[in-house]
Amino acid sequence: MPEQQLNVEQVVRPNGDSARRPIMLAICGDSATGKTTISDGLVSALGPERITAACVDDYHRYDRQERKALPFTPLNPQCNYMDIMAQHLKLLSLGDPVLKPVYSHTDGSLGRPELVEPRDFVIIDGLLPLYNKMLRGCFDVTVFLDPPEEIRYQWKYSRDTSKRGYSKEEVAADLKKREPESKKFIHPQRAYADIVVRFAPIEERGETAEDPLSATLLLRPTISHPDLSGIVTEDVHEAMHLKLTRDDDGKPVDALHIHSYASRELTRKVEEAIWAELGVDEPLPESLGMINGERDEPLAITQLILLYHLIQAQNGS
Amino acid sequence: MPEQQLNVEQVVRPNGDSARRPIMLAICGDSATGKTTISDGLVSALGPERITAACVDDYHRYDRQERKALPFTPLNPQCNYMDIMAQHLKLLSLGDPVLKPVYSHTDGSLGRPELVEPRDFVIIDGLLPLYNKMLRGCFDVTVFLDPPEEIRYQWKYSRDTSKRGYSKEEVAADLKKREPESKKFIHPQRAYADIVVRFAPIEERGETAEDPLSATLLLRPTISHPDLSGIVTEDVHEAMHLKLTRDDDGKPVDALHIHSYASRELTRKVEEAIWAELGVDEPLPESLGMINGERDEPLAITQLILLYHLIQAQNGS
Repeated sequence: MPEQQLNVEQVVRPNGDSARRPIMLAICGDSATGKTTISDGLVSALGPERITAACVDDYHRYDRQERKALPFTPLNPQCNYMDIMAQHLKLLSLGDPVLKPVYSHTDGSLGRPELVEPRDFVIIDGLLPLYNKMLRGCFDVTVFLDPPEEIRYQWKYSRDTSKRGYSKEEVAADLKKREPESKKFIHPQRAYADIVVRFAPIEERGETAEDPLSATLLLRPTISHPDLSGIVTEDVHEAMHLKLTRDDDGKPVDALHIHSYASRELTRKVEEAIWAELGVDEPLPESLGMINGERDEPLAITQLILLYHLIQAQNGS
Repeated sequence: MPEQQLNVEQVVRPNGDSARRPIMLAICGDSATGKTTISDGLVSALGPERITAACVDDYHRYDRQERKALPFTPLNPQCNYMDIMAQHLKLLSLGDPVLKPVYSHTDGSLGRPELVEPRDFVIIDGLLPLYNKMLRGCFDVTVFLDPPEEIRYQWKYSRDTSKRGYSKEEVAADLKKREPESKKFIHPQRAYADIVVRFAPIEERGETAEDPLSATLLLRPTISHPDLSGIVTEDVHEAMHLKLTRDDDGKPVDALHIHSYASRELTRKVEEAIWAELGVDEPLPESLGMINGERDEPLAITQLILLYHLIQAQNGS
């Protein structure tokens, strides 16, 4: 037909309204690094009518049965439709819905896809959302979760045996099998995050994985972080402090420490100061930091910083 | 990250090579109108390495079980993710792959989606590919299959009882249930086709649905058809003829008739003349018109005309 292709651009972007483009946040990390815990808190804080959360670990080329004959795990980009993942993220970033594949952790099958419609904010979590430039180009804010392997293993044992029906031996075998690909494909994405989050016990205090964990947030100067200079001390003996340091690669970075024993009084003061910087009408959400029905201060501050970036990006500042 | 959104356009169109855009053909029609038969012949003629064929009847919002509680059939656009269908067709038309949903006719479930990668040519068949402007904008050539309902019912009984495991009573009930939505949603798409194809018995000759069927192709002046003036006679007594007529809506149209008794000698002459108009090096495919292992002349000419348009569109003429 003569008019063909005339409206093609409108097909993908029917509203053509760049002001309504959703704000996109990536939460990247290996299996059992706490991606869902952080994401859930942001959804609670903003309300599900304003935020869409989706995991991009379902773009598998092969189901569990097919993978048995193959030399790689789901961590390997070759095992995934990376181009389709990028295509879907781009569409979401333009405000368009996608029909996302769905992988069942229960039986390892690929099933009925589900509709994902972007709201004002979109949180994407997964193993590989920062793997290549096309993927990274879709996000406004990027986060990498980087707990010590000891902590991650413990979280994984706990979740996969209780919620996914595996035995401890199966989880151990799986962790071992995935280790080389975790190093090769997952961990290098740390370099592309605006914020690196590390929940860990403080060894100097004799803490172990059993104790409540402290958090360290590496705030890279790739995005504009809240000005913490008048809010958080540089005194490293305080329960919450900011320290100018060097990252593993030698680059300078601000490290925000929130110790597990930080008091609610202290964190409330910091939260309110950060929130005030946003200059928005809505109240500071009270629901941050919840895990297993209890409030965790390092988790609350972590979520608040991400929330700050989402709202700041929406305000275009 | 500062570079975010810079590469967003490349995400959907990594090659940025408009010369490589696939040629898109829509074959639209109700259930059991012969869409697959026509499409299969084109795939055989061009070879699967040059052509991608996909059906867009899998974009269901609801599976068979869920539909039982709903007041519409799959013919209703409300029952389908029409925006995602348009999105996927647009992506294919730009040369990008899509992860297409898959509906099982066997058990009525929605299952594992499949990768569809566009080659030089893409044939899309289905119930609703011409339903709205966004969909239509994705195609270079559009076809609507319009057999008499009597013929279509017979084809549907035959296929659904032999290949899809239904009883004749179930098929009859389904046809009756779908009739209002067929009239409301499927048939109006006829208006948007460049070519309307009607396989039917010739009543004046006393033929019935049991006899080999003749074909009438309405060639609308919305695309540039092969010049048949020196190739096909206007004498309506000949087994193959071209007739200037009025469509149901009163608009002038060329009607190409190919009677079932047209000889192979006649059709070969016409085929070769049409093929010569293309001016291409490759030989005229010998595989056209096959159905149930035998060659059908009206089907062969129908497929050849579509093939002509695919190759003509690729050559940019």
